[in-house]
Amino acid sequence: MSRIAFVNGEYLPFEKSKVHIEDRGYQFADGVYEVFAVMNGMLVDYDAHLSRLIRSLSEINIKIPLSKRSLFIHISNIIKQNYVSNGLVYLQITRGVASRDFKFPKNIKSSLVIIAKNISMNIYEDTFKKGITVSTTNDIRWKRVDIKSLNLLPPVLAKQAASELGSQESWMIDQDGFITEGSSSNAWIYIDNLLITRPSTNSILSGITRGTLIRGLKKRKIKYKEKKFNLNDIKGASEAFITSATQHVMPVIKIDKIKIGKGIPGPKASEFKSAYMESLKLTEI
Amino acid sequence: MSRIAFVNGEYLPFEKSKVHIEDRGYQFADGVYEVFAVMNGMLVDYDAHLSRLIRSLSEINIKIPLSKRSLFIHISNIIKQNYVSNGLVYLQITRGVASRDFKFPKNIKSSLVIIAKNISMNIYEDTFKKGITVSTTNDIRWKRVDIKSLNLLPPVLAKQAASELGSQESWMIDQDGFITEGSSSNAWIYIDNLLITRPSTNSILSGITRGTLIRGLKKRKIKYKEKKFNLNDIKGASEAFITSATQHVMPVIKIDKIKIGKGIPGPKASEFKSAYMESLKLTEI
Repeated sequence: MSRIAFVNGEYLPFEKSKVHIEDRGYQFADGVYEVFAVMNGMLVDYDAHLSRLIRSLSEINIKIPLSKRSLFIHISNIIKQNYVSNGLVYLQITRGVASRDFKFPKNIKSSLVIIAKNISMNIYEDTFKKGITVSTTNDIRWKRVDIKSLNLLPPVLAKQAASELGSQESWMIDQDGFITEGSSSNAWIYIDNLLITRPSTNSILSGITRGTLIRGLKKRKIKYKEKKFNLNDIKGASEAFITSATQHVMPVIKIDKIKIGKGIPGPKASEFKSAYMESLKLTEI
Repeated sequence: MSRIAFVNGEYLPFEKSKVHIEDRGYQFADGVYEVFAVMNGMLVDYDAHLSRLIRSLSEINIKIPLSKRSLFIHISNIIKQNYVSNGLVYLQITRGVASRDFKFPKNIKSSLVIIAKNISMNIYEDTFKKGITVSTTNDIRWKRVDIKSLNLLPPVLAKQAASELGSQESWMIDQDGFITEGSSSNAWIYIDNLLITRPSTNSILSGITRGTLIRGLKKRKIKYKEKKFNLNDIKGASEAFITSATQHVMPVIKIDKIKIGKGIPGPKASEFKSAYMESLKLTEI
């Protein structure tokens, strides 16, 4: 848990970190967020996450409330003040506080919240050795999930449904039967010596970890393809993975009742993880 | 603007009414809301709104944080403390505060916020005389808009797009070209002596005002039909309307570039408004 939070210009004790009830994030989910991984006290792929944040804001016409330089300083401060060496920074920007009305208020100042917490690398390493299981569900989200918005009830319900089936992640299926992505990750399968993930369109969030892994694959000359896949393809897969800022590259050993490969992380898992780890960019704070 | 707000058990001055930054309403839009109209100091169709609230909560497995009796008392208090005689009560319930994780937290207490404000009946009457204009947009919302959830960025964007075109409401069009509903209202057209509105399924919110109007139409033996309609049907309409808790029955005089009837509220507008007004149920506070 974050000890200190940055809330609209102030550094506050976490318990006292509050926003107004008419913040449009609270009433309308009118805002966006980013999750930055922290490794050895450094930010992972900071520039890519920042670019995506700026794009998300721009797509829904929210002004960034401070300069890039100030934003970086506050993120750095929150990492330091919470003594985070390995973990994450969660940052949320909403349109701001205004009397409730659907249309954009005029002359509004956007809200900014930043928190950070440690996550033990041991947990990641242990999970990586075992792999995770996935349950599928229908993708009932809105049509602009390329925007990293706060409209997260559909993936919340998907993750919960998966959790009730004993799975750690949910893969969502579009109306044509193709997997879109995980509720908070991108989805990959390895089939016939080819690593496959869905192309980046409005139907998925363009994952930063996904992008870094692709760079790593290119460097190592590992064959991959951006291509839709369905449950039938999954049946033929020898390995499967999710990627996300906090899960990095994580092997999937079962999807619904389909055992992937031998039902344990496969021989390629470490190679793909290394391809990611050696391609990520670390920024000192 | 509300002077006093009810926030998780406390009556607070509006400016000091805050929720924690890790309220799941703020991070995940993990909650639902209701808007109750107030007329002459009484609640309009309270039981129907309460039933819909309970259904919305039940659909996403949020427990109502207090008894129906307590809820009614707090709503009444907020109306009184804000001296509301004609206006609205806005009530929001979220899953509560927990360390950020998509799946439902265990042992969580849901959050409850209630505010209220006056809206001059003169504004409604003036707008009713003039009618409103509507712009259409693609319906890009998630597939469970029958739940009155906080995932409101899509209708926010729709209303804003309409507003930029000089319109007061947006009607959303599904992938088959049929109107679903307004961004915060239900949509109706009057064509060949028949009042038409879309059937209540997962594609629209089952409006309480819509339901009350239907009861009123039945009482007056006015012909109506629950039936999908598209832009072609709109071209043949002699009148059009929206219904919502705060707009009651409101005539629509233009949809995109299509002038409805003579481009002024038609002869049926007052009749339908009366059918609604005489069928609504008032609850004393």
